[in-house]
Amino acid sequence: MTMRVVFCDPYSQPEPWLDMLRRHLPGVGVEAWVDGTEPADYAVVWAPPQALIDQQTRLKALFNVGAGVDKLMQLRLPARLPVVRLDDAGMGVQMAEYVCHAVIRHFREFARYETQAAQGVWVRRPASPRTDFTVGVLGLGVLGARVAQSLRQFDFPVIGWSRNARVVDGVRCFVGAAQLADFLAQSRVLVCLLPLTVDTLDILGRAALSQLPRGAYLVNVARGEHVVDDDLLALLEAGHLAGATLDVFRTEPLPPNHAFWRHPKVTVTPHVSAQTLHEESMAQIAGKILALERGETVAGMVDLERGY
Amino acid sequence: MTMRVVFCDPYSQPEPWLDMLRRHLPGVGVEAWVDGTEPADYAVVWAPPQALIDQQTRLKALFNVGAGVDKLMQLRLPARLPVVRLDDAGMGVQMAEYVCHAVIRHFREFARYETQAAQGVWVRRPASPRTDFTVGVLGLGVLGARVAQSLRQFDFPVIGWSRNARVVDGVRCFVGAAQLADFLAQSRVLVCLLPLTVDTLDILGRAALSQLPRGAYLVNVARGEHVVDDDLLALLEAGHLAGATLDVFRTEPLPPNHAFWRHPKVTVTPHVSAQTLHEESMAQIAGKILALERGETVAGMVDLERGY
Repeated sequence: MTMRVVFCDPYSQPEPWLDMLRRHLPGVGVEAWVDGTEPADYAVVWAPPQALIDQQTRLKALFNVGAGVDKLMQLRLPARLPVVRLDDAGMGVQMAEYVCHAVIRHFREFARYETQAAQGVWVRRPASPRTDFTVGVLGLGVLGARVAQSLRQFDFPVIGWSRNARVVDGVRCFVGAAQLADFLAQSRVLVCLLPLTVDTLDILGRAALSQLPRGAYLVNVARGEHVVDDDLLALLEAGHLAGATLDVFRTEPLPPNHAFWRHPKVTVTPHVSAQTLHEESMAQIAGKILALERGETVAGMVDLERGY
Repeated sequence: MTMRVVFCDPYSQPEPWLDMLRRHLPGVGVEAWVDGTEPADYAVVWAPPQALIDQQTRLKALFNVGAGVDKLMQLRLPARLPVVRLDDAGMGVQMAEYVCHAVIRHFREFARYETQAAQGVWVRRPASPRTDFTVGVLGLGVLGARVAQSLRQFDFPVIGWSRNARVVDGVRCFVGAAQLADFLAQSRVLVCLLPLTVDTLDILGRAALSQLPRGAYLVNVARGEHVVDDDLLALLEAGHLAGATLDVFRTEPLPPNHAFWRHPKVTVTPHVSAQTLHEESMAQIAGKILALERGETVAGMVDLERGY
């Protein structure tokens, strides 16, 4: 019997994705999922409806077209269903790029130089010492570790925090709730790369953000729900935080009347820090389907209990 | 007899520099050079007058407070005088930072996102493939090699060009005048890190810039005299070049009426890509003075013949 794969992403046209999957899975039946499609062996999804889960009762695995599985975690999933997320697939380098650009821009005051240039003003700012410009990376998964190592390259001291102990070359790592305050107190830039779970929802509220040193800078490239918007705005107003670069928001697109849009200390981008690359991600998922068929284990298995 | 060191930089107050040299050279006589100061063993200089060279006839070496020695090369120097320039001294990482920021900003279209954000517009641009986004580094000295390797980290194909053959890990290297056209034709971003010599003066004029692929981007962090301003402006107007980030200019400060200031495709910074760090550079020079006194060789010896 021919192996069958269904694809479902309510936010995009399925044809290009189907074509890529078919190219990587010759001989496999690949089709777009619609309500009533008969059970397939694998499903490749982004933010699918509960109906897909309920109807696709014979799935050997569910593949998430993204690194964060928080949308899937809002569904009722059978406990026995293996859920696999993208690991990197071209997203690590984009994240490293985005974060390094934001951190360098803040450290080197390039936005100020652009303002000066618009006024024809030639004034040099003294070089800041980097030995005490510590960057803290919150979340040390595949993407967090990659970002931390990219930052090391520019000789910033880099520290990291994660729920479970991690080792990242050249990065001083803090672990668990007990060490979070210590980690925050040393982070002159805080980069959020956490998964979104019940434990990390609203984690960057007044309490945590206040523990950053005065003049600290926030970069959020994880999920909007990590940040309590009003608390961030209040700490920016109070001058405790120097600014923020935000790529993700509680509501996307960011609503037109949201204060972040024109706040002079906030840089907004439309969730582009790491875009899913169609070709790389479909090639990776196809490769993992074939590996599972051969009885091999694959990277990116999600622990449904912990939620990432 | 006590060793003596003179310091001369017409553009800065000497005291902080003298203090640092004295701290690193205990027991050595360190003083500011003025017209008539008697001959010393070493001189530490930036853009000194010819009189210093003419009067300081017993110098064992002349130290340049900077990586580029083009200002010194405009003087009449005794052929037997060892001239030593700074090697790195904290400049490499700054250069890498500056160039990565400029390249990422262009590649990821962050300036466009900022314009959109100012208008409250949420529109994602498709991710560009990086496998054919080749960055060319013109000049592969200490700083050029460092910059090339920083760029490699973001998975851009990186190529380099230098007068003499160089090997830089992961970087395809082109050599000499015969290979310059090939190198230029492949560079979607061109980063200039050449020394300024009679051979490189005006090297980025219409002929060379026209050989870049259509839509190429220029980053100049070397010397303003490498670029023929009017040719660059003409190629920007013609749409052959997409833009430029310029940190150095033929006249500095850049004159208020210069077209670069408000050109929509040109980003101007006031020669800050790699600022000389006082402490690091004085520590390096002091270390080299002590090494020379012990009869050792030191890095950064300038070849007066070739001019760098």
